[in-house]
Amino acid sequence: MRKLFVIGIGAGDPDQVTMQAVKAMRQAEAFFLIGKGDEKRELVQVRTTILAEYVDTPHRIIEIADPPRERTPADYTGVVVDWHERRSELLEAAFDQVDGVGAILVWGDPALYDSTLRMVENVLARGRTSFDYEVIPGVTSIAALAARHRQVLHRIGEPVHVTTGRKLREEGLRDGSTVVMLDGECSFTQVPGDDLHIWWGAYLGMPDETLIAGRLREVEARIVARRASLRAEKGWIMDVYLLR
Amino acid sequence: MRKLFVIGIGAGDPDQVTMQAVKAMRQAEAFFLIGKGDEKRELVQVRTTILAEYVDTPHRIIEIADPPRERTPADYTGVVVDWHERRSELLEAAFDQVDGVGAILVWGDPALYDSTLRMVENVLARGRTSFDYEVIPGVTSIAALAARHRQVLHRIGEPVHVTTGRKLREEGLRDGSTVVMLDGECSFTQVPGDDLHIWWGAYLGMPDETLIAGRLREVEARIVARRASLRAEKGWIMDVYLLR
Ligand SMILES: C[S@@+](CC[C@H](N)C(=O)[O-])C[C@H]1O[C@@H](n2cnc3c(N)ncnc32)[C@H](O)[C@@H]1O
Ligand SMILES: C[S@@+](CC[C@H](N)C(=O)[O-])C[C@H]1O[C@@H](n2cnc3c(N)ncnc32)[C@H](O)[C@@H]1O
Repeated sequence: MRKLFVIGIGAGDPDQVTMQAVKAMRQAEAFFLIGKGDEKRELVQVRTTILAEYVDTPHRIIEIADPPRERTPADYTGVVVDWHERRSELLEAAFDQVDGVGAILVWGDPALYDSTLRMVENVLARGRTSFDYEVIPGVTSIAALAARHRQVLHRIGEPVHVTTGRKLREEGLRDGSTVVMLDGECSFTQVPGDDLHIWWGAYLGMPDETLIAGRLREVEARIVARRASLRAEKGWIMDVYLLR
Repeated sequence: MRKLFVIGIGAGDPDQVTMQAVKAMRQAEAFFLIGKGDEKRELVQVRTTILAEYVDTPHRIIEIADPPRERTPADYTGVVVDWHERRSELLEAAFDQVDGVGAILVWGDPALYDSTLRMVENVLARGRTSFDYEVIPGVTSIAALAARHRQVLHRIGEPVHVTTGRKLREEGLRDGSTVVMLDGECSFTQVPGDDLHIWWGAYLGMPDETLIAGRLREVEARIVARRASLRAEKGWIMDVYLLR
């Protein structure tokens, strides 16, 4: 492979793709698709829609199986690093099937809680193959959340903290505003405080998009219930929220 | 005015505009352009390029002067609030010139250190006019910075803190990774620590894009000097960096 594009495609709405992303996609002869399992077929669907709508150049899709991963390990960092290693072996084998330009479509922006860039660096670090690569930034789920709630993330001159559900439980809130991603456990219910607001969004930009906002103590039970029923109905959920 | 779109256009490269943004722009009969003064003509140029390249529907441009603002006031929040109030008066008068759909193109993403949404809310809060409005998310300068350095923002499972130069000087670094925006004073030189790395970028996505990365203590003098000479040469600068 001569060159690889790692392309951010936005966080749900196929129209969130940028012109820069479309131009990069049109140069690619092969797209690497990292499998997400059946339950997230809709996420694969967004990529398929983007390719069908904006890429009329000939291309092929190379599917890469996703190795299984322990979900709540004791040694979190160690397990994730291991899993990345196994993924990069599979990736390397896939890269070797391409001569010219390849591309990986990444959900949201590739720099935000996504492992693709680390995997690519791992492949290069193994030293068995080499190629040029370029990253195309994308719209994040954070920007999508704020847009749908028509909210600014920061208070004037104040910081914004982006964290995970796990870290929120461990560290609590900081001052300023906090955006929480990757939270499978409604960690907002564990944050004390009577004057907090929450802006919550699930499946942003997708047909099942759901938004709830208000005083945290007033709406939290409703979010927990809605999240549980949506998740049960669809088999998976992706949600993100702003706390302040 | 019936409807207003507040549209994120990406942070410098006109190709960072999304399909969603283009579709919204094509519905607008008028674009409100908030003046930035002569020195930032290039920033206006990006918007002009986007309109010329992607919007072939008839439209007009309504320019709105930007009221002057004290740059380093003692009462920072107070002065900014005041300035927003004056801006929203001017905005309201401009909105009244449009019957159908208007649009404001916002640098990067509208939710990140931008005052447009607050101004729109101020206009609506005055109660003299009413309209529907919708926010279109955009690629942030943070995503652009990370992409050009091919860096992931977070360490695995760790938070990302987004802050301003002023706050960095007041509060110092937090653990995890820190992105600093709106820093006119190279505040990274005031952060202690021998094992920090910096990924710095100026004029991202623009012809003068400049990137410097490395161990902070090794490259900071170079960044300070380069920043000063670029700024002197062009009359303005926009830069952002990741510290870890
Ligand atoms: C592995 S991270 C990837 C983030 C992505 N790179 C981005 O820029 O948004 C997945 C997390 O992003 C958030 N997320 C991504 N897309 C979302 C969407 N459409 N609706 C709600 N949350 C979303 C959720 O918090 C989810 O747990
Ligand atoms: C008023 S804020 C607006 C941020 C914008 N809404 C966004 O999403 O990036 C302006 C700050 O953003 C950063 N910035 C915006 N565009 C940039 C670019 N092209 N290159 C470097 N920094 C940029 C700088 O830190 C600058 O001080």
